[in-house]
Amino acid sequence: MPKIVDHDARRREIIEAVWALIARRGLDAVTMRDLAAEAGYANGALAGYFRNKDEILLAAFQHAFESTNVRARESIGDATGLPALRLLCLEIMPLDEARLMEARVVIAFWDRAVHDERMAEVHENAMAAWRAQMCGCLRQARRHGDIVTGTPDDEVVDTLLAALMGFQINAVLLPHTTTPRRQEAVLHGLLGSLRP
Amino acid sequence: MPKIVDHDARRREIIEAVWALIARRGLDAVTMRDLAAEAGYANGALAGYFRNKDEILLAAFQHAFESTNVRARESIGDATGLPALRLLCLEIMPLDEARLMEARVVIAFWDRAVHDERMAEVHENAMAAWRAQMCGCLRQARRHGDIVTGTPDDEVVDTLLAALMGFQINAVLLPHTTTPRRQEAVLHGLLGSLRP
Repeated sequence: MPKIVDHDARRREIIEAVWALIARRGLDAVTMRDLAAEAGYANGALAGYFRNKDEILLAAFQHAFESTNVRARESIGDATGLPALRLLCLEIMPLDEARLMEARVVIAFWDRAVHDERMAEVHENAMAAWRAQMCGCLRQARRHGDIVTGTPDDEVVDTLLAALMGFQINAVLLPHTTTPRRQEAVLHGLLGSLRP
Repeated sequence: MPKIVDHDARRREIIEAVWALIARRGLDAVTMRDLAAEAGYANGALAGYFRNKDEILLAAFQHAFESTNVRARESIGDATGLPALRLLCLEIMPLDEARLMEARVVIAFWDRAVHDERMAEVHENAMAAWRAQMCGCLRQARRHGDIVTGTPDDEVVDTLLAALMGFQINAVLLPHTTTPRRQEAVLHGLLGSLRP
């Protein structure tokens, strides 16, 4: 089925070309024509791949989520337990310009997901995947004896996911007090509190 | 200057009438005409008070921020230090239906603030006020001997503000894993880690 493969590959190419434009100018400020131009398509040609801007935003969110996971897999390598958990968190945190741009896309996506069940479901699945991965790391860390807290794993993950999502907002909107160094200090403190 | 007072009072009345509609349906789905109807005004009459939907959203954010502060003042009363900090955090957390609605308004506001300097500045001032109040509580708590952590106050506040902002997102978009009980457990853990 080469046609389907082509279609998916083309969608991915389009998203890679346009996601940064959405991050830079905001979804409201760009038209389908702007997005087509950015991707090097004629006006109207995007309609065969995405029905509207919300579909593009959904794909851009998935792109940001998958990019994070690709980076995390590379960064984690053979690590397990607490070191793996720390590396996953670091890749989710908006610590450099590319990830700050991803955070801007994610904020736009959240606003739409509040009133769009399909988007909310995609978001819920993404967060459930991170929760499962984090819980796996915590179980390994407990087996290794690297964690001695009586706090249940789910509560540790609740805390981490709240802080990591908050960083997406705060790094974009409060950049002076949410520097990479200060984000890392918070993570260090949260993970340090689990140690013997 | 009774005219200015009237104008401000009227703006406040309008916001109190419309903010829940914005939360329920989303800013994109409502028109100035819908908002005027909700406030009991003739179509077009809102223009004398708010130039556009973004101005209404800005006022709705300020309304949510001020409502939180009114609740917090009542709840805190004469408390100081760690108990006062806990009560402030609890009022910021989306623990009931009214505060979940406020969180939805705040998420819409964040999305606009990413690309609007005036909104971003209002948000920054609001967060700076909470930071100052939290730092004040932490200083009192240290004086009382209720805190023994070597973590600097600003880092404690970085952690709390990240978690509290993350809760706004997670309680709206991941309601099954971000219940009031679980949010309270996270806060309890974060504040407990500061104790002797």
